[in-house]
Amino acid sequence: MINKLSNLNKPLLMGPGPSCVSDLVYKALAKPTLGHLDPEFIDLMDEIKIFLQTMFHTKNQLTIPVSGTGSAGMETCFVNLIEPGDNVFILINGVFGSRMEDVACRLGANVDSLNFDWGTPVLLDQVEKKLSHKKYDLVAIVHAETSTGVCNPIEEIGKQVQENGALYLVDCVTSLGGINLKMDKWNIDAIYSGTQKCLSCPPGLAPISFSKKAVEKLSNRKSKVPNWYLDLSMIINYWSGKARVYHHTAPINMLYGLYQACFNIIQEGLENVIVRHLKMHQLLVKELNDLGLELFVEENARLPMLNAVKIPKGVNDENVRSKLMNKFQIEIGGGLGPLTGKIWRIGLMGETAKKENIHRLMDAFRKILN
Amino acid sequence: MINKLSNLNKPLLMGPGPSCVSDLVYKALAKPTLGHLDPEFIDLMDEIKIFLQTMFHTKNQLTIPVSGTGSAGMETCFVNLIEPGDNVFILINGVFGSRMEDVACRLGANVDSLNFDWGTPVLLDQVEKKLSHKKYDLVAIVHAETSTGVCNPIEEIGKQVQENGALYLVDCVTSLGGINLKMDKWNIDAIYSGTQKCLSCPPGLAPISFSKKAVEKLSNRKSKVPNWYLDLSMIINYWSGKARVYHHTAPINMLYGLYQACFNIIQEGLENVIVRHLKMHQLLVKELNDLGLELFVEENARLPMLNAVKIPKGVNDENVRSKLMNKFQIEIGGGLGPLTGKIWRIGLMGETAKKENIHRLMDAFRKILN
Repeated sequence: MINKLSNLNKPLLMGPGPSCVSDLVYKALAKPTLGHLDPEFIDLMDEIKIFLQTMFHTKNQLTIPVSGTGSAGMETCFVNLIEPGDNVFILINGVFGSRMEDVACRLGANVDSLNFDWGTPVLLDQVEKKLSHKKYDLVAIVHAETSTGVCNPIEEIGKQVQENGALYLVDCVTSLGGINLKMDKWNIDAIYSGTQKCLSCPPGLAPISFSKKAVEKLSNRKSKVPNWYLDLSMIINYWSGKARVYHHTAPINMLYGLYQACFNIIQEGLENVIVRHLKMHQLLVKELNDLGLELFVEENARLPMLNAVKIPKGVNDENVRSKLMNKFQIEIGGGLGPLTGKIWRIGLMGETAKKENIHRLMDAFRKILN
Repeated sequence: MINKLSNLNKPLLMGPGPSCVSDLVYKALAKPTLGHLDPEFIDLMDEIKIFLQTMFHTKNQLTIPVSGTGSAGMETCFVNLIEPGDNVFILINGVFGSRMEDVACRLGANVDSLNFDWGTPVLLDQVEKKLSHKKYDLVAIVHAETSTGVCNPIEEIGKQVQENGALYLVDCVTSLGGINLKMDKWNIDAIYSGTQKCLSCPPGLAPISFSKKAVEKLSNRKSKVPNWYLDLSMIINYWSGKARVYHHTAPINMLYGLYQACFNIIQEGLENVIVRHLKMHQLLVKELNDLGLELFVEENARLPMLNAVKIPKGVNDENVRSKLMNKFQIEIGGGLGPLTGKIWRIGLMGETAKKENIHRLMDAFRKILN
């Protein structure tokens, strides 16, 4: 039998995620598996909660990693906070906003949505107009739209949502650990992320956090959460309290990876990591411009960790990306939906956000495009 | 900062799961992360599907690992196959049968259940009586009840369910790779498992398989699956077909682990692995009896990989288990629910099912109990 793992390539991951993983995180994944009720493992769980509180800038007790990828984090937030007939307002300017709408509709919510052009941020005046006319149970938005490279004004919208009285749900899958994000200060009630972006851990877990107001909504539900696996009212009894109650077997080794990934960031200093992302983004943009390539998003709405680049006229998208992969072992992303063939998505997430990676990509671009 | 991963213990895992993990699987987890649309990774996905078909003894096209732990497998099967108002019949003789009932009720099914004593198998005549009086959309049962150590007669009930016309859903979380299991031959329409039992991979993935009849039910749904993350009608487009459509980012490194775990079993020979489980079980039972310890389950319904042992009168459950862990670095499980303090659960799953482990446990037992 041939073992296909024996000769895996090790491409440089510069797409929209997964990002590069540090050797320490790989080593963590391979640490000996402990039982999910072993006191030593529970000690690690407690530390992971503190790490995540630090990362989200929150004091929320209910701050844990969900046992699934980033999309499971989205599902967890909606399924725990929405009951059939709830009024939900979703702001959409990319794939992940649209996904939120799909998730909420499946749960029987009355969903209003506001769509903005892909590549531009959500506009405050339009949101305010809508919020002033109707009271909502929940307002949801994506912080860093991975499909377009746009950063949405989360803090400002937080103030508008607070006036409306709705719960404020924010997707920070791509933003966490890469740009400024202050959960408590910005009035965010529920948040979810993923491990494979700026945390630089392989995909498999979704850090989430719920405010007191969100926990109250959960506690006062009229119906059971229609999803046993993601029911936080039960999961919470495994992640906190003296007597840990078994719910499902936690993904032990993935949690080692998340522990180490957070450890790395906190040791470097979260603020330093954010500055590094910004500096590397500035370097990349300069180098791209030097090569005659333009960014898709206006300067003031750009994400440092996800750079959408216009594909020049006459250049074949797939041709360039497959050359990058096959000749230079570099992965970048293509566009999604209406942006297919129109943009490339260059990730500078976590461990990927380093000078040598940018130089390696630009060298390859020069050879392919000239 | 102190890194709590630096000095992790490496206990011998002889509880109800997670089980011992081979060094090759640990190494696989630490292989370089590939992109989730990288052709090399898609090639691995295709091989994992074939491995799982081999393990389940099925030709079903829809045979994949779900991105969550075993309980996510349970959730996936129910949420894709049940629509509100469907008639569902659940056979219960332990924790995991009860969990099925909870999951199905949350999805709006009309649930009938039949409860049997914990520690005894589901009884065929009672099932037949019920099935002859009512037509069901789905009948569900647990193969290996991890909470009691009982093996249920899956093949025989499969015949009864076929006559009724219902879909037949089987939990094989603990049975897969440890005892005989023939999905196609036994008329099973939907099945789910977990990685942390007899596959000897850390927890984090749930292999599932759907028959043609199950896929038809999914295709003919009147309503969307009320769970975006686990909606197989979308996930299937990522796991098969020429153009792989992104759904959620797969847990890449966990899938490396599953690949290696299946590889190990298929290389040893699935039949040989099953025989090894049986032989180790027989050895354990002999040794336990020599020490005056009795099994909780009648001989003909015992699971080889999950041995429920009666705690002798006057012996303190937690005292013994904490000595086993703290003095001998061996983890075994306690009883759940009504069996708390009444039984120990000794796992002989996958890599754990070896002579040296049994001897190590028995030596420790002798020192603690005498």
